[in-house]
Amino acid sequence: MNEKNSNNFVYGKNPVLEILENNPQRINKIYVQQGISYDNRLKKIIEKANEKRIIIQKTNLQKFLQFFNENVNFQGIIASVSSVEYVELDEFLNNKKEGYKKLIILDGVSDPHNFGAIIRTAVSAGFDGILIANHRSCPITPVVEKTSSGAINHIPIIKTTSLSASIDELKRNDFWVIATQMNASDNYFEIDYTDMNFVLVMGSEGSGISKTILNKADYKVKIPGNFESLNVSCATAVIAYEALRQNYIKFAKK
Amino acid sequence: MNEKNSNNFVYGKNPVLEILENNPQRINKIYVQQGISYDNRLKKIIEKANEKRIIIQKTNLQKFLQFFNENVNFQGIIASVSSVEYVELDEFLNNKKEGYKKLIILDGVSDPHNFGAIIRTAVSAGFDGILIANHRSCPITPVVEKTSSGAINHIPIIKTTSLSASIDELKRNDFWVIATQMNASDNYFEIDYTDMNFVLVMGSEGSGISKTILNKADYKVKIPGNFESLNVSCATAVIAYEALRQNYIKFAKK
Repeated sequence: MNEKNSNNFVYGKNPVLEILENNPQRINKIYVQQGISYDNRLKKIIEKANEKRIIIQKTNLQKFLQFFNENVNFQGIIASVSSVEYVELDEFLNNKKEGYKKLIILDGVSDPHNFGAIIRTAVSAGFDGILIANHRSCPITPVVEKTSSGAINHIPIIKTTSLSASIDELKRNDFWVIATQMNASDNYFEIDYTDMNFVLVMGSEGSGISKTILNKADYKVKIPGNFESLNVSCATAVIAYEALRQNYIKFAKK
Repeated sequence: MNEKNSNNFVYGKNPVLEILENNPQRINKIYVQQGISYDNRLKKIIEKANEKRIIIQKTNLQKFLQFFNENVNFQGIIASVSSVEYVELDEFLNNKKEGYKKLIILDGVSDPHNFGAIIRTAVSAGFDGILIANHRSCPITPVVEKTSSGAINHIPIIKTTSLSASIDELKRNDFWVIATQMNASDNYFEIDYTDMNFVLVMGSEGSGISKTILNKADYKVKIPGNFESLNVSCATAVIAYEALRQNYIKFAKK
């Protein structure tokens, strides 16, 4: 339970149902009190949460009492929500900008320190957004916000229920998909990042990028080296900055 | 050289396997969680440990929690190890190798996750050592070993009581000193890393590199970007890999 020191909770059946129906992308996790009896509203919440692939955890809600100043009536249910609002992919695509767009996709990066460091790198290297999957990735927790050093307020975080469908949508919108893979034949510095909209897909350290996503990639690249792999946030920084470097060289920007 | 400490543990399947394969003489004993199910990696560990006649003890791992400050993921396995032996600068300088030497110096990097990630990057990008100051840097803790994913067994860690004196010694031995500084005029990709022995000095995120050290630098470089700064392990990766990239390009190594 990393939500300590955060006031980002919504509690009570109606408020949780309300946010589930209108802003489900803001919900990180739902906590349900152990041993509580399920009435219709609670059943509806569980059903909706499952539908949207939101994690439900049974827990002893007494633990939460210390996080609140007032004596509140939880009604057996609490949702941990991010203070940062996630953006829809459509919204991101509709935002016009001059020049090419660059996006980072995280496929299963679950460590909040890595996620925070990646947000910082993405802002620094001039990326336009970060896309994460609802069920496979670390949500925006207070640890993520803290590790990002505030960078999270400078870049849209897009959340999707289907990474695969989102990648298809991006490809329809003229994005090229670059996936990192340990045994790829091309090195990451052998492609030209300056002449296209692109998404850079980074996988989890344990299992890498899922096969479905790899199959959709236009480019597969590796980071060469003498050891099995880099930490995922370091790997992201290496590639993100190669893209930036190429742009600096090409446009002789100081 | 005598940093032996009975409270050193390495935990997690990959880090334990790594040390079993590369530095088995450092292992005192292996503890396996009672009642855990044996997957392939765990079976491999047991097999290797038996082969090397290392004692395996089944135990309740909850006992170990008190030795760690953080909530860590043991994966059911812990090895008690002698501390990684630090190397003296003289020893490092006396080790001859073909071609140029590359060294990373950490001036006040105190976070163990960052230190671990930097070790991994250094090995991956082909650096020859990491030098830290006795009093200003994070020592090799179990968290560092775990975050390094075993990379720590592949690179000498040099410890010095005076960073300043060590840098003077390195300069006398034909090393060029590259320091990172936020307001430097040159970008990190504008210098040629392929034609010299060099040390890359990285400072703490809070206070950067100390003035005495900055004054000794032959090159000062910045990582350009849209945000205040990168996480220090990401920044190290960006520069370390630029050096590797230049070597690949120059020597057309695949």
